[in-house]
Amino acid sequence: MLYRYKIIIEYDGTPFLGFQKQKGSHLLTIQGSIEEALLRCVNQPIKIEGAGRTDSGVHALGQVIHFDLPNYWDSFKLSQAIQFHLKNMHNGNIFIRIINVQQVNSEFHARFSAISRSYIYKIINNRYPPALDRNRAWHVIKPLNMNHMEEGANHLIGTHDFTSFRDSECQAKTPIRMLHFFNFNQNEDIITVHISAKSFLHHQVRIMMGTLVAVGKGDITPNDVLSILNKKNRCIAGVTAPPQGLYFKEVVYN
Amino acid sequence: MLYRYKIIIEYDGTPFLGFQKQKGSHLLTIQGSIEEALLRCVNQPIKIEGAGRTDSGVHALGQVIHFDLPNYWDSFKLSQAIQFHLKNMHNGNIFIRIINVQQVNSEFHARFSAISRSYIYKIINNRYPPALDRNRAWHVIKPLNMNHMEEGANHLIGTHDFTSFRDSECQAKTPIRMLHFFNFNQNEDIITVHISAKSFLHHQVRIMMGTLVAVGKGDITPNDVLSILNKKNRCIAGVTAPPQGLYFKEVVYN
Repeated sequence: MLYRYKIIIEYDGTPFLGFQKQKGSHLLTIQGSIEEALLRCVNQPIKIEGAGRTDSGVHALGQVIHFDLPNYWDSFKLSQAIQFHLKNMHNGNIFIRIINVQQVNSEFHARFSAISRSYIYKIINNRYPPALDRNRAWHVIKPLNMNHMEEGANHLIGTHDFTSFRDSECQAKTPIRMLHFFNFNQNEDIITVHISAKSFLHHQVRIMMGTLVAVGKGDITPNDVLSILNKKNRCIAGVTAPPQGLYFKEVVYN
Repeated sequence: MLYRYKIIIEYDGTPFLGFQKQKGSHLLTIQGSIEEALLRCVNQPIKIEGAGRTDSGVHALGQVIHFDLPNYWDSFKLSQAIQFHLKNMHNGNIFIRIINVQQVNSEFHARFSAISRSYIYKIINNRYPPALDRNRAWHVIKPLNMNHMEEGANHLIGTHDFTSFRDSECQAKTPIRMLHFFNFNQNEDIITVHISAKSFLHHQVRIMMGTLVAVGKGDITPNDVLSILNKKNRCIAGVTAPPQGLYFKEVVYN
């Protein structure tokens, strides 16, 4: 019998080459680090599954993973043990934080059981680059028109073919996705955008944000977002916004 | 004739050995970095004065400095030049951010003209150490009672002899200080405390926070803060809270 565990984690994406383990390499990844920590806990290789594969430099506030252990572990003890090994492996730094550990039934799957995912994108809109948010936000110098960005974003809400907002290497079977909402928030020079969908295409959030920032700068109009969507062509959308502004916020399950 | 400039800066205190330049050493300091950047701008040594001397690891959201230049510089050009050199000196990293540059009259003094200063102290109150706030907050595991902390803090508001809350190396002539307010705010596991005074003694904010956290944990009562204050003895107050939770927020001038 196997015991399945669901874990919620926060991480600083800066030192990592993304979530996914790189085959046969020693590059620092989230998956690689947690699998190594689990190996040190139970003395045998354990494979984990994540709700989403974040890119290099992308952070997480509430990434969810699951895995199976051959023996029962008390949740709190397990969380302490994993956190202990992660800290040791990373020279005493907390790059990955265990937020919650829960034993779940074997039908739970971090990726396939999810009914919605949300991301936060953070922009510092100021002449000067941020110090405290150095690896935590996209620095945009030109003043952004938030109303225009919201107007542009409204065209993306709902079910659409998001071919224009999908990386050329995206392997999803269909480009159709359903976007629940965009929430814009501005506090002095900090703009945060909260985005929710059932699931996202590869680089979708970052390409949408690159396009909406082009709207905010006045390079394109809010209505251009609709025509970009309709043309189903990645080349006409905006740049892929940098990873350090992106936070994998939350995964919702039934 | 000399031209005086006032500059507001933000910094990540993590890589620095504090604000104050260390004599004859090559340790990284805020003052040392800015003076070096100014030397590169104007080709002669310039001495700066800061509104407050933050400790090693302490951050700033709005530290204020002033200095005199032998020639007139356009404020925007000067800010760009300083930021350029700071970034170069720090291997492309933005550890110090110029927020604002303003030419001021020669009576302005960053330290002596200040009528009030405020700090923010940030605590992560959670079983698990933070990842994204790794060098940005004090991690306190034991659940804190915010009401008790506020009750304890109320005893400190107003004009008092703060001998109990002053580092043994403090060189201020008098231990009397006037505290304007404490504002407590809690958002999930993040506690932020906003503290304002005309000026502070050495380590005063950190010793007050160490003491209030002892109240929050239940190690001492809110009323004990009053007796600690009255006893004028550093040894009976709480620990000095760690520097990474402290942010020099703002300086107010007439």
